[in-house]
Amino acid sequence: MSATLIPLAPTREPSLDALITLVASDMNGVNAVILDRMQSKVALIPELAGHLIAGGGKRMRPMLTLAAASLLGYPGTRHYKLAAAVEFIHTATLLHDDVVDGSGLRRGKRTANLIWGNPASVLVGDFLFSRAFELMVEDGSLKVLRILSHASAVIAEGEVEQLTAQRQVATGEDQYLEIISAKTAALFAAACRVSPVVAEAGEEAEHALECYGRNLGIAFQLSDDVIDYASDAETMGKGVGDDFRDGKMTLPVILAYARGSEADRAFWRDAIGGNRISDDDLKHAIRLLRDTEALADTIERARQYGRRAIDALAMFPASKSKSALTEAAEFAVARAY
Amino acid sequence: MSATLIPLAPTREPSLDALITLVASDMNGVNAVILDRMQSKVALIPELAGHLIAGGGKRMRPMLTLAAASLLGYPGTRHYKLAAAVEFIHTATLLHDDVVDGSGLRRGKRTANLIWGNPASVLVGDFLFSRAFELMVEDGSLKVLRILSHASAVIAEGEVEQLTAQRQVATGEDQYLEIISAKTAALFAAACRVSPVVAEAGEEAEHALECYGRNLGIAFQLSDDVIDYASDAETMGKGVGDDFRDGKMTLPVILAYARGSEADRAFWRDAIGGNRISDDDLKHAIRLLRDTEALADTIERARQYGRRAIDALAMFPASKSKSALTEAAEFAVARAY
Repeated sequence: MSATLIPLAPTREPSLDALITLVASDMNGVNAVILDRMQSKVALIPELAGHLIAGGGKRMRPMLTLAAASLLGYPGTRHYKLAAAVEFIHTATLLHDDVVDGSGLRRGKRTANLIWGNPASVLVGDFLFSRAFELMVEDGSLKVLRILSHASAVIAEGEVEQLTAQRQVATGEDQYLEIISAKTAALFAAACRVSPVVAEAGEEAEHALECYGRNLGIAFQLSDDVIDYASDAETMGKGVGDDFRDGKMTLPVILAYARGSEADRAFWRDAIGGNRISDDDLKHAIRLLRDTEALADTIERARQYGRRAIDALAMFPASKSKSALTEAAEFAVARAY
Repeated sequence: MSATLIPLAPTREPSLDALITLVASDMNGVNAVILDRMQSKVALIPELAGHLIAGGGKRMRPMLTLAAASLLGYPGTRHYKLAAAVEFIHTATLLHDDVVDGSGLRRGKRTANLIWGNPASVLVGDFLFSRAFELMVEDGSLKVLRILSHASAVIAEGEVEQLTAQRQVATGEDQYLEIISAKTAALFAAACRVSPVVAEAGEEAEHALECYGRNLGIAFQLSDDVIDYASDAETMGKGVGDDFRDGKMTLPVILAYARGSEADRAFWRDAIGGNRISDDDLKHAIRLLRDTEALADTIERARQYGRRAIDALAMFPASKSKSALTEAAEFAVARAY
C-alpha cells in the first residue's frame, strides 16, 4: 500500500463542456435532421451548406434549445426539428453576412463566398432559410412560427441598421446595443424560447428563457467584439481585425472614440472611414483600445449581461441543466480575457 | 339627325386589362398591407423596398391571388395579407436575383443593388422574406404556410440550379423546364393556390388553380426568354440581351444550339462561355435564333403552357373572373410576338 497524492481541484476556467455533455445525445438527433434536410437534388446546395454546417461551428443556438428543454424536463423530441430550423436560420445569416462583409475567412476556413462565389452563397442562404420555415411548419406550432418569423425579421432589420452605421463614427453605445440586440441576441432569445413553448411550460418560463437567451447573446457579441481586437487568426479561427477593416463601430471602438484625445479621435475617424487599414494601423488601434480601457470595459459590460442571463434562470430549481446554462453565460464573458 | 358610323369591334390583342379591372378594388387593400408592412424604423428598408415595390411592377402574383379568390366568390379579406406576402417573397427574390446577376436595370429603372449596393439588397431581401412569413403567421393557416414555405425552398433550389447551369451549353430542354418550373412557376402556382385554401373551396379547386398558376408561370417565363432577344431596353424596361451576356441557357438558345451547324454551335459555345458579349455578337445570336426558328418555337411552347393553364380552369363556371384569368394566359403568350 502506498500513499497517493490527491491533487486539489484546480480553479477551473468556465467552459461549454458541461453544456456540450448535457445535450450530446439530443444533439445527435438534431444533427440527423440537419443533415437530412440540407439535402437537395441540386448538388451545390448540400456541398455549400455542408461546408459551413459541418465546418466546426459550436452549434451554440441548437445547444441552447436542447438545454432549455432539458431544464424543463421536456420528454419529447419535437424540439429537434426546431433546433435544426434555428441552426438553418443562423447558417443562412452567416452566408449572407460573409457576402455583405466580403469576408474570406470564418472559423479558420475559407468562406463559402470565396470558394463558390457570392451568388451561390446568397441563394443557398435563401434555400436554408426557406427550409427552416418548412421544418417549423412540419412541427405545426403557430406560436413557434410567430417567434421565429419575428426573430428573422428583427435580425434582418438589425443587419441593415448595422450596414447603415458602418463607417459612421458617430454611432453611440445605445444604438449599438440596439443593433446587436437585433442581429445577434434575437436568435439566441428565440432559440431558448421555443423549448418552453413545445414543453407547454407557461408564459413565465417562456419569458425567463427568452431573457436568458437575449442577455447571453449580447454577452457573446460583446466578447466577440473584444476578441476581434485581442486575438489572432490562428487561435480564433476568424480573421483578427475584420471589424476594424470593415469600419464597424463595435462597442470597444465606440468607447475608445468617446474617451480619446483629439488626435485619437482623428485617427478613429480616418480608420472607421476606411483610410487606415494597415497592420500598423490595427496595432495602433489596439493600443488606443487598451489605453482607454475600452476593451476591459466592454468585457465588464459583457459581464453585466452575463449576470442578467444567469439571474433570468432564478425561477428554475437547481439541476445539471441549470448549471450548464449558468456556466455557458460565464463562458460567454470569460472567453474574451 | 345624322347617320353615324359604328366601327366594327377591332380584333383585340389579349391584355391584362380585364384582370386589372377585376381586382382593382381588392388591390387597394393589398397595397395598403404592402405599404404598411414594408415599414421599419431602419429608414433604408422602406426606401430600398419602396424603390422596387412602387417601381412599376405589374403585381402579377397578387393579382392572381385576388382573381382566384374572386373566381371562387370568396367574400372575405384574409387573402389581402397573403397576396402581400406573395409579393414580398417575389420582391425578395428580385432583389437577390439582381445581386446574383449583377443587373443594373430592371423595369427601365436602375436596380436597387446599383443604387444602394449589393449588401443592402441582400439584407433588405431577407427582411422582406421574413416579413412575408410574419404576414402568413398572422393569418394563421398552417396549410398556407406549408404551401408558401415549400414554394420558397423550391424557388431557391431552382435559382441555384440555374446558377449551376449558367454558361453550360450542354443544358437540355427538360432541365431548363425543371429550372423555370422551380424558379418562376412555383410562386405563380402558390399565389393561385392560397385563395382556394382560405375560401375552403376543396382540394379539387386547389389543384386546378395551382395547375393554372404553374402553367401560366411557365408561359410567362418562356415569353420573357423570347423578349430578352426580341426587344430593346426602351420598350421593355429591361436590358435586352441580359440573358445573352449572363450566359443563360434559356429555351431559345437551347433550341438554336441543338439545331445549329457546327459553326453555329461553336459560336454559342463561345457566347455562352462569356467570350462574345458585344452588340454585334448579340445581333448574330438573334439572327441564328430567327434562322433556326428557335424564337417562334419557344413561343409555340409557351402557347401550349398557356393552353394548359386555360384548360385547368375548365371546372369553374363561366364568369368575369374566369374570362380575366383566361385572357391573362393568352396575354402571357401574345406579349412575346
